[in-house]
This record gives sequence, structure tokens and C-alpha cells, in this order.
Amino acid sequence: MYKDELSVFVPNSYLSESKDFKVRTYKVGILGRALAVFRANRVVIYNDTNNEDGIYEEDGKFMAEVLSYMNTPQYLRKRAFPIKAELKHVGILPPLRAPHHPVDDSPDVGDYRQGFTVKRTKKGTYVDIGMDKLAFCKEQLTVNKIFSFKLTKLAKEVIVTPEVPGDIYWGYEVISTNKSLKNSLKLVKPDFVVETTRYGDSINSIFDQLQSKIEECSNIAICFGGPYSSITENISSGNYDLIKLNTIPDQGTETVRTEEAVVATLSLFNLL
Amino acid sequence: MYKDELSVFVPNSYLSESKDFKVRTYKVGILGRALAVFRANRVVIYNDTNNEDGIYEEDGKFMAEVLSYMNTPQYLRKRAFPIKAELKHVGILPPLRAPHHPVDDSPDVGDYRQGFTVKRTKKGTYVDIGMDKLAFCKEQLTVNKIFSFKLTKLAKEVIVTPEVPGDIYWGYEVISTNKSLKNSLKLVKPDFVVETTRYGDSINSIFDQLQSKIEECSNIAICFGGPYSSITENISSGNYDLIKLNTIPDQGTETVRTEEAVVATLSLFNLL
Repeated sequence: MYKDELSVFVPNSYLSESKDFKVRTYKVGILGRALAVFRANRVVIYNDTNNEDGIYEEDGKFMAEVLSYMNTPQYLRKRAFPIKAELKHVGILPPLRAPHHPVDDSPDVGDYRQGFTVKRTKKGTYVDIGMDKLAFCKEQLTVNKIFSFKLTKLAKEVIVTPEVPGDIYWGYEVISTNKSLKNSLKLVKPDFVVETTRYGDSINSIFDQLQSKIEECSNIAICFGGPYSSITENISSGNYDLIKLNTIPDQGTETVRTEEAVVATLSLFNLL
Repeated sequence: MYKDELSVFVPNSYLSESKDFKVRTYKVGILGRALAVFRANRVVIYNDTNNEDGIYEEDGKFMAEVLSYMNTPQYLRKRAFPIKAELKHVGILPPLRAPHHPVDDSPDVGDYRQGFTVKRTKKGTYVDIGMDKLAFCKEQLTVNKIFSFKLTKLAKEVIVTPEVPGDIYWGYEVISTNKSLKNSLKLVKPDFVVETTRYGDSINSIFDQLQSKIEECSNIAICFGGPYSSITENISSGNYDLIKLNTIPDQGTETVRTEEAVVATLSLFNLL
């Protein structure tokens, strides 16, 4: 499956079972890797309804920060992420090694690169695309942000134009909403929503039905619950079709962890 | 799928990218969890052929130790695993919460329990099954080992009989062979071997064929490569059918990590 849009929804309670900072970082890393391996376009961190006193709000921010860090090409990380205590353990994160993370520092004309906008003048914007010198874009862009560019001229000056490639996987967008799952879904406007739960229809019992559903939809959201319970919110809506799906029939353990469910489920949807 | 036998083969180079001891422990934890979630009966740690100077031999032992620890019910861990430096970080391991890890310390007659053989007399063997007092088995068993028992009498004395339940998932066996993959496969005698590699047939292209194959076979082995390369050994043999399978078609990243491949692949086979 490669849909126009695939969004993955994970609660901000994702880390609530883990106190160890290294483990917390690593667990977010599992999520970031899964998104890239299975070419998800977006991860949305929603507010778990069990988050009564806002205890998971900080966790949600941390998750977003680490996921964004992972999705940022190595050559832009120093500029985009000032040193901070939260990111102390990012050294243990596995690299994505996705197409938007080129290891080559001499791109060719026609190559796509993510770039960090460093300085804006009346004529345009200077952009760091991981080369020895800054590239120049003839548009006025917001500074201190990452955009995607196409390298259009490679001479004394390197000229780039804002453009996202259409045919290769170009990383994921990170959104931390601090809103309920239902309200978070509204932001993304999916036409098909999958609520993963062990109490849903077993995926083998509705495999063909699911396959045709996915073929007709173009903006799919797959939602996961937290470590302590599956999704408790009622997310039914007239705006999309909703299916409750058990993606791990006959599980051998009493509970399935969110990161396990994400990898297992995205693997199955990759087949559909 | 719940086959008579499902074995997972992982190389002893599994941890070669990770130096951090906490991360190494956690990574083995991901493996142990995946085995239990998808009800694998056995994990075999084979010797990576790139292991020229035996550098991964210790890693293989460590993996086997942590996997065995995870598979051991909490109430037997102190007896079965003396304190040692290698197991320093086991506190971060997620529990399996599988049926052979009961949390209840007052079992009923007919319940199954794993037990540790503490002392043998002429009449039989005393066994720790996690109750206040030791249970008694009227057979002479090797001491300091874990066996499975059925609780047959619950009176002043608790009587147990060696027995493995047939109808519920009862954990996995751990084998560290320090032999090549091909020689390790010989120990398990599978009738169908799946070699996972990105250069194999894509799983969606041969889904139906794979499904009928699995229905006719009863002892399946799924083999994974290490972090630096897929399986390089030629494991063809007249003793089993072999298929090379790409379980993650169109992967978004250049490489897929072994633990990701394990969860993604077992999730797909759970469907078959």
C-alpha cells in the first residue's frame, strides 16, 4: 500500500510505563523507525483521555521532539535542535536511513534536499542543504525552519527551489495536538479510520473487505491506544468510515504494547 | 496460525550495533515479547558467518540468558537466575504476561504451573511452583531445573505431575547453538523454512501460495539476518522446502533492523 496519506495516531500516554530516560528515548525511536519503514506520512500524538491532570502533556512534547529529531537529516540536526537535557540520549536512536537523509554531501542538479533557512535578504533566502556553502532560494521563506528543495543550478552559486518530491518517501510530519483523539482526527480529515483494539473484528475475518475499503479511500488514519488500555473514547463520526480492528488475533500475551501493535499493524497494512 | 511448531532463527550478531548495556537488554526484550505475542515455540540463536573471530559468541550467550529470564515466571526467577552483572538491567524488560506467568499465588487443582525442582528424595521431588510451600512430585526429576506440571491434588500436601498443557501457549524454548544457520536448522528439523530477505519474493505476490504451503507443513522455521547484512549462507537442503521471502515490500528505509523484521514478519504469519 502506498496511499496519498497514511497517518498514525498514538496517545501521549505511550511512555507512561517507562521511567528510565534512555528507555523512553529508545521507545520513541521504535515508533519513528516504524513510521519510516512503512512510509507513514504523519504521526499525531493525541491526548489520552485518562490524562486527568495533564500528566502526559510533557510526555507528548518529548515524543514530538524526539520524532522530529529522528526525521531531520543528520546534517541539519545541530541547527534545528539546540542542545537540551531532553535530547541527552538521542545517540542511541537508530538512524532512519530514508531517502530524505542522504549521506552524500555533493548533490547533483535535480536532487531533492531538506534545507534549513538561515538568513533572508530582499532577493531571497540562504539555505543550509548540507553542503560546504549555503544554497540560495529566490523566494522569501520563514527563517529557522526546514523546507524541502530541489537543486536547480549548481555553479558558483547553488540555487534551490522549494519542492517536495512526489514519487519517493520523504519522511513524516509530527503533530502533537494535546487534544482528544476525536478532535485530533478532525485536524487530519481522514476518509477511513482504523481503531485498533483486541475487541475488534479479527483482521483475517474481514481481510478482503478491508482491502477494497483501502483501495477506495485516500486518507487513512490508524489509531492506537496506550499502555494501560485500548482506546476508550467514542470516535464515531459522520465524516469518515470507522472500523474496529483486531490486528493481532490469538495474541499469546495478555496485553500488546503500543509499539508492538504499531509495527505489527503497519506491517499488515503494507500488504493491503 | 497456530502450528505445532514455529521456530524463529536470529543471529548472534543481533546486538552488534548496540554498545549500551541497557539498550542491549531492551533490544533482546523486544525479541522476547515478539516471540510470546505471536506464540513462537522456540528461538534459535545461530552463529553469524561474519563472526570470524568468535566476537559474537558472548553476545549469543547473553541473548539466550535474557530470553530465558523473560520466559521464566516471575516467581522462579530468583531461584533460576543467580545475581550476575549481565542481568543488571533486567528491570527494564517488559513482562511477557503470557499464560505460563500466572500472577495468582493460589492455583487450583487442574491448573498448570512451571516449577523449579529444589530437592530430590527416594520418594520423589520437591518443586517450587510459586506457592507458600513446596509442591511434591512423585517422580525423580533432575534438580535445579524448570519443568511444567499439572496440579493434581491440593490438600495438606500439594501434589503435581509433570505435564505440559496442549491447548494454551506455554512460552518458548531458547537454544543458542553457536553453529551456522544451516547446522542450526538441522537441530530443529523443520519441514518448511522461510529465509527473510529484501531480495526474496514479495509476500503479496505469493500470498496464496504461502498460505497453502503453511497449511500443509507442521514445523516451520523463519530465519532472520543480522544488522549488517541479510543471510549470506546458502541454506538449501533436501530436508525441507525453502522460500526466500521479502516480508516488507517497498520499505521506506534503506535497511530494516532485525527486531523490526521479526515483529513485522511474525505479524504477517499470524494471518496466514
